[in-house]
Amino acid sequence: MVFKKRDVAVVGIGSTSFGEHWGVGLGELVAKAGFEAAEDAGIRGKDIEAVIVGNMSGGRFVGQEHVAALMTDFLGLNPTPAFRVEAACASGGVALREGYMAVASGFYDLVAVGGVEKMTDVYGTGAVTALAGAMDFGWEAYFGTTFPGIYALIARRYIHEYDLSRTQLAKVAVKNHYHGSLNPLAHFRNRIKVEDVLNSRLIADPLRLFDCSPISDGAACVLLAPAEEARKYTDTPVIIEASCQASGTLSLFMRKDICVIDATKKAADLAFNETGLSRKDIDVIEVHDCFTIAEILALEDLGFVKKGEGGKLYDEGQTYVDGDLPVNTDGGLKAAGHPVGATGIKQIVELVKQLRGEAENGRQVKNAEIGLAHNLGGSGATVVVSILRRGD
Amino acid sequence: MVFKKRDVAVVGIGSTSFGEHWGVGLGELVAKAGFEAAEDAGIRGKDIEAVIVGNMSGGRFVGQEHVAALMTDFLGLNPTPAFRVEAACASGGVALREGYMAVASGFYDLVAVGGVEKMTDVYGTGAVTALAGAMDFGWEAYFGTTFPGIYALIARRYIHEYDLSRTQLAKVAVKNHYHGSLNPLAHFRNRIKVEDVLNSRLIADPLRLFDCSPISDGAACVLLAPAEEARKYTDTPVIIEASCQASGTLSLFMRKDICVIDATKKAADLAFNETGLSRKDIDVIEVHDCFTIAEILALEDLGFVKKGEGGKLYDEGQTYVDGDLPVNTDGGLKAAGHPVGATGIKQIVELVKQLRGEAENGRQVKNAEIGLAHNLGGSGATVVVSILRRGD
Repeated sequence: MVFKKRDVAVVGIGSTSFGEHWGVGLGELVAKAGFEAAEDAGIRGKDIEAVIVGNMSGGRFVGQEHVAALMTDFLGLNPTPAFRVEAACASGGVALREGYMAVASGFYDLVAVGGVEKMTDVYGTGAVTALAGAMDFGWEAYFGTTFPGIYALIARRYIHEYDLSRTQLAKVAVKNHYHGSLNPLAHFRNRIKVEDVLNSRLIADPLRLFDCSPISDGAACVLLAPAEEARKYTDTPVIIEASCQASGTLSLFMRKDICVIDATKKAADLAFNETGLSRKDIDVIEVHDCFTIAEILALEDLGFVKKGEGGKLYDEGQTYVDGDLPVNTDGGLKAAGHPVGATGIKQIVELVKQLRGEAENGRQVKNAEIGLAHNLGGSGATVVVSILRRGD
Repeated sequence: MVFKKRDVAVVGIGSTSFGEHWGVGLGELVAKAGFEAAEDAGIRGKDIEAVIVGNMSGGRFVGQEHVAALMTDFLGLNPTPAFRVEAACASGGVALREGYMAVASGFYDLVAVGGVEKMTDVYGTGAVTALAGAMDFGWEAYFGTTFPGIYALIARRYIHEYDLSRTQLAKVAVKNHYHGSLNPLAHFRNRIKVEDVLNSRLIADPLRLFDCSPISDGAACVLLAPAEEARKYTDTPVIIEASCQASGTLSLFMRKDICVIDATKKAADLAFNETGLSRKDIDVIEVHDCFTIAEILALEDLGFVKKGEGGKLYDEGQTYVDGDLPVNTDGGLKAAGHPVGATGIKQIVELVKQLRGEAENGRQVKNAEIGLAHNLGGSGATVVVSILRRGD
């Protein structure tokens, strides 16, 4: 069916700092981000018509499922309908997409989309075991594989197939830590050098500690409304031009080529087709750099650089905030932190800041008009690509 | 915004038997239900445009999050977009509602909505602990409360406030076991007597073993399409007239009256207002009887009987398949079983069978035209009420 979708705008944003929040729970994190977004849009809780929250593993991390119900309690939003979306590390991206569809379709006029994870206070088994629930438990995790192990396999194969130096890989982390140092909400604000990465502890060969994103706590929230009503809430609306999703296999062994994330290619093609934009139109990019190698795969599979040539983007600083292709200006998962369910929403918060011209501490991309967010679950079984544009 | 929603039909159904499925995993369960639904509608996997799956706690039960990605793998549906919805025991109901909205809005023309839980093969701590993630972990579960404990508090207060005999409460289970004996997919197919309930082991006073729904494995699936295209798939479409959701507090202590589930009242009012139907128009009802007392609360809060008078419905067999108000004709959660994420979809599968006139073994409600499903999460923090009508 052909139908008229409404344009959808982000009209409010909020985010906790990411890091170790030992003193607060899941509910308090969500509340902080949610209230901040509400204040940003100048709305009251009762204006919100539906709540969607991305969360990967409240049950495993802190014993709490039914996370959206917790969110409505802490934000005082009952009886507003609320639910949680889970797609591993892409939970936030999928939640955004569901919120986008709920407003674009006309079902709702104001939707709160949150993302949250509390990972440092782990209930039961450790965080790395809990995270392994994002891969195929029966075929991968059961045999002892962890995510560093999965991405190490990919990196090893990539280095075998293509021309990627250990230094180029390290530069992904160096650049993200530099951006993180400019982001007041980042988990890590220390700058690092290539040698720091190369000398850090080996985790899963060839990946070292500084190739890996951290275990973080945090929450982020965006408020979505029809674009035509956006000026009621903000002088600086940001339009969601497209939010597209695709699936790939959960297990690596089922893929023809583990150096290609099919779901990223598919979701990107859908988003660029829908908007009619080209890669050159994108001014600022958020990609899912759960490991340094993942950032390189993402930029290739999104179409910003040819397969096998991603490493070259790191030779001359192209991906820095003042480069030709600014990537992860908030520090990415690596330095801003990766509270899993919150990450896909945090990416949107960063893009909105960039497109509003409000990015702090010299990490503003000059005259940024169009941004792209890439959020990935597991080792690529779920990918969401969203394109945002500064409102007129 | 006023917009024209499309009518949405259920065009295919599938379900595994519910019970202890030690030999199969989450993926196999989903695949069996999904393939059966596809066969029922005469479609191929590639016709499906989106996949939504209700699952409460794959992470806690079997270590597997990212459940929708597992579903697309097992059903061969990549790169179709897929995600999991979680709202505790209402996960299935919320998934149905999201599928309904995705088709009603025009975003998709064929959506698969599944529900699954694998609970007998518990990874880590026990199933009862995992289930406690559906309540407020910090304020309830942390102090040792279990769901039988929560519902025992409600039952105790109800008996204090209103006129409900232990025999009436037992008759809820007796009726549901009778219906279960007629359902080939039910977890329990044995008929029981009032004395069996009264003599069963005390779990949490006043609730005994036969007042409690069991720990089950199972999956169910429905296929949704625009009503105007439904005849392409089936001669017996069933229309979703409304699917409405409301939230209440996660914790009991935050409620004014623990004998009233506000979210049930709110969701029911929304559904009846939207359809213009009255309670008398409903021919067959599926309610969320996680405990016997919960079935009585549900019938009261849905408006089928006055608060405090629910027990009377069990004096003379009114809620049996041949009574005035047939409730849980498949055996309900008590006898058909309660694989948490699957329950809300199983309710729809049963209603579709009833409205098609295909309910087996003499549990067909005569000339059933309109059915209602009530799916509840936790102790009432999330409720979905859906109303279905036999297609013309």
